[in-house]
Formats: sequence, C-alpha cells, structure tokens
Amino acid sequence: MRTDKDNVLKVGIVQHSFLSDVETNRTRNVSAIANLAAEGAKLIVLSELHDSLYFCQTENVDNFDLASELPGDFTDFYGAAAADNGVVVVASAFERRAPGLYHNTAVVFEADGSIAGMYRKMHIPDDPGFYEKFYFTPGDLGFNPIETSVGRLGVLVCWDQWYPEAARLMAMAGVEVLVYPTAIGWNPDDTADEKERQRMAWITIQRSHAVANGLPVVSVNRCGFEEDPSEQTSGIDFWGSSFVAGPQGELLYEAPEDRPDEACVEINLARSENVRRWWPFLRDRRIDAYGDILRRFRN
Amino acid sequence: MRTDKDNVLKVGIVQHSFLSDVETNRTRNVSAIANLAAEGAKLIVLSELHDSLYFCQTENVDNFDLASELPGDFTDFYGAAAADNGVVVVASAFERRAPGLYHNTAVVFEADGSIAGMYRKMHIPDDPGFYEKFYFTPGDLGFNPIETSVGRLGVLVCWDQWYPEAARLMAMAGVEVLVYPTAIGWNPDDTADEKERQRMAWITIQRSHAVANGLPVVSVNRCGFEEDPSEQTSGIDFWGSSFVAGPQGELLYEAPEDRPDEACVEINLARSENVRRWWPFLRDRRIDAYGDILRRFRN
Repeated sequence: MRTDKDNVLKVGIVQHSFLSDVETNRTRNVSAIANLAAEGAKLIVLSELHDSLYFCQTENVDNFDLASELPGDFTDFYGAAAADNGVVVVASAFERRAPGLYHNTAVVFEADGSIAGMYRKMHIPDDPGFYEKFYFTPGDLGFNPIETSVGRLGVLVCWDQWYPEAARLMAMAGVEVLVYPTAIGWNPDDTADEKERQRMAWITIQRSHAVANGLPVVSVNRCGFEEDPSEQTSGIDFWGSSFVAGPQGELLYEAPEDRPDEACVEINLARSENVRRWWPFLRDRRIDAYGDILRRFRN
Repeated sequence: MRTDKDNVLKVGIVQHSFLSDVETNRTRNVSAIANLAAEGAKLIVLSELHDSLYFCQTENVDNFDLASELPGDFTDFYGAAAADNGVVVVASAFERRAPGLYHNTAVVFEADGSIAGMYRKMHIPDDPGFYEKFYFTPGDLGFNPIETSVGRLGVLVCWDQWYPEAARLMAMAGVEVLVYPTAIGWNPDDTADEKERQRMAWITIQRSHAVANGLPVVSVNRCGFEEDPSEQTSGIDFWGSSFVAGPQGELLYEAPEDRPDEACVEINLARSENVRRWWPFLRDRRIDAYGDILRRFRN
C-alpha cells in the first residue's frame, strides 16, 4: 500500500480540437503539457490521434503518410516534451510498424523522456465516419499495464472503453489508474435526444469500469467539428466531455462538450484500496462459471 | 427479429418496504401484481427476498425457518398470482434445497402459473449487515436465460449486478431483457456524500450492462429502514431507486429513494437490435485475448 505522501496524483488532461497541420497541433500539445506541468500535474494525458485531424472519416491510402515509426520522430518529440517538463505523458500515435501494417498505439513516456511502454488498441471500430479497420490492425500486445514513476497505468484506447473485459484484465494485472485517450463524436444530423443518449452511454460505461474494478478512470476526448473530406456524411462533432472519475465512479472533473479545455485534477490512489475493502468485488468473481466469456456467442 | 406488434413490453416494478409478517408481505405483493396487471404490465418484477425482512443483517440459525422448498408453498402462491393475473412474474425465494443447503433463488413464473425457470444467485456478498455467505450457497445453475412468453429473460440477483461478466454471459446467451431483483441500502451512519456515491455507483454499473450489451435493464430494489436485530450496526436504510433503462443505458423510469412505488414502464425490445447495429460491440470482442478473465488475478 502506498504511503500517504504518495497517494495524491495530479493528472493533467488535454482536451483539444485539431487542425490538418501536424506542426501546429504538436506545438499546442506541448504548450498544454508545459501549462499543466506548471500547475503541478505529474501525469498528463492527451486524446487519441492528437497530431492530426481524425483521418478515419474516409478510407484514403494517402493518410498512411501520417503514420510514424516507433521509436522515431513521434517518440523523440513527445519524449522531449515529457523530459522538458518532468512529467509522465500518455500520447497517442498512428504507428507504422511495417509497410502495410499499422496500429493505433498509445505511447507512455517516463518523466525522463524514455518510453515507459506502449499499448496497441485491441478493439478496432468500423462504422460510417469511423473507418478504423481500414487503417489499424488490432493490437497484439494484449491488455497489459505500463509501469511508470506515478503508478501502474492501464492504458486503453477509445473503442476499448466499451468492453468491460479490457478494464477487468487491466485491474487484474494490478493497474492503479485506467486511462482512455479517445476520439468520439456525434453525427451532426442526429437528434439532440440521440446525441445525449450516446454521450451519456459513453460516460456511463467508463464510470462503470471504475465501479466494477475499484479504480480511478481518466478519459480524454477531442472536441470540435471536423468535416468529412468525402462529403458522404455531415462530418463529426467531437463531443469533448473528458472526465476523471474516482474508484466508485464518482465524477471528479468533467470538461465541457464544445470547447478545448486543459485541467489539472487530483486523484487519491489510496482510496481504491478503501473502496475495494468496502465492496470486495474481486473476492467473489465466479471464475468457475465464466468460461463462455471466451466464446463468440453462446449458441 | 420481432414484429412491430410484439416489440413493446410493459414491465411492472414493485418497490416495497417489508414487515416481519410474511403473510402481510405476500398480500401486498399480490395486490401490486394485480394493480400492475390491470395497468397492462405483462412482466412484473418483485425485489429480492420480498417475503420477509432482510434477515441477513445477522447470522441466526432460526432464520433458516424462513426458507421454502422449490417447488412448494412459495411457488404455489406466486404461481397462482401469475395465473390469476395472466402475467409473467419474477419472484425471489430463500430456497431450502436440503437441510443445511440453501440458495438465494429467483423464480420466474409463466403467465399460466407454471414455473418458467429458476436462477440461483451466483455471486454472494458478505459484509457487515449483509451476511449472505452464512445463508446462501453460491448458485450452481450458471448464467442461463429463462424463456418466457414475453421474451428471453436474463435474471440476475443483487450482488451479481456488480459483475460485468454475468451480464455479458446472459447477453451472449441471447437474452432480451436483464432483470435484477435486489436489496441494497445505506448504513445510516454514512455521510450524505458517501451515500450518494454508493447509490450512483449502483445505478451506473447496471446502466453500463445495458450499454455494453445493447439490452434493456430492469432493476427492482426494496425501500425503507430495517433495524439490525443484533444492534451491532445502525441497521439498513434501503435506498429504493428501482429503475428501467433502455439498451443505451438511458433511464426510462426511476423510482423514489424513500418510499414504496409501483410503476408500469414500456420498453421497446426492437430497439436493442437497432442499437446493436449502430454500436456493434459484440462484433469486435477480442476473445483471443480474454483468457486471463478466467484467472483469480494476474499475478
């Protein structure tokens, strides 16, 4: 168990909108990292694919030019940002692993700029406006924690957030914080009611991972409207709403839906142990009866 | 897929407080079933252990006298209530399976009064005021749906509600509605903030099962204060808050925290299929990487 001194972790969340110009996005991201580090953040989380527009709105082979080899220019850049500010950074890369083989990969940098670990997005969505199966091969690194100086992180990415299995596997590996870089938004043509059902479902499922596992959750989304270059859809209105929840799913911070936000939020890592003593869900799992979880469907 | 005519299901929820007198509780339960059937409910859900006070506040061997053999007097009584009103009823029994072998068992009655199926609570809690491991052997019927004339029901009980695995296994078996009879409340000594965190965690985790699985959820709790006969604790203030959620986790109905409530709520079973087409989570589960779910912990 942590000592009192180590218990409070200040987390910086960077909810930005992005432009097509990668250099501008990077400059703004580094500026946010510096701002939040100056506020005392020790762990800073960027949103998914924060170096570019959300290019998955169309299937276009030219977009593979946006990918980066890891390690390479991407890790040099964000590693330097972590080191310059002495903070752990969760960044999100479009990984070029080989010609014709790409991943959606979170990279965690230690406060000295070294790579603490990587997580390749395991669940890949595909629906109109989110053609990720065209771009990303599903991850092959499994659901494994990344050890850092601020704690053992369970980094998952966007579509992973809908899967209780992913959060559970991270909790079972002893993670102390669940972290979700994400890029999710509305179809502008949907009704206000439908939009709110979707946004609330997204918040609810991630808060539930905190509840089920007695762990804090940090979820960082982008915001702003991005048009569909193919003009087949009305584009995506990214809904922001980044948040931090404590280990009972209680909301510690909620960012606005409609504009950029940078916030430094305190989480108490010792509280997880207390909550798990009160509600010891891990004690009572019926692992003797869960076998069919590994099937596609029970028919 | 269901026809339009079959899509709307009226669900009756019975949020009661209870007395020590079983006959009074039963009379009130049957009255609620009749009232809700008259309002058009076709599926009526009672809360957990609705024939008695929540006797698990203490470990007392005399309480085993409250148990019923199944089938027996309990099923005769509630089967008749189902038949008399022509409705499917989800009831909750303290099952006496053999001397020294008891379960916390949900019994589902068909609208003709026959037993459609039973579910024995799989996850059993145990903490001060909720000494269920003393009374109930963990269920051995697995996570299996119960077929009824109003649809395929996934009945789970109380502590099961904290386990995403249970809801997932039911969804994978093709259930159309998740149903949770429950008995949960506050320690009156807790702060208002802590009470609200607990109540919201309970709502959040169950709404998340709707979201993760694209299924409606019906959760029915008891309400009212029950004292601790041993006077070791300050008793339990059962928090009501029974609710019905649609397949995006959207709240369709919420009962009050502090008083009995009977409500008839419409759910549209066809909406689940639409929601699953928009957000096809079942498509993308990484069953190749979930194996460790069957372990106790990953260390």
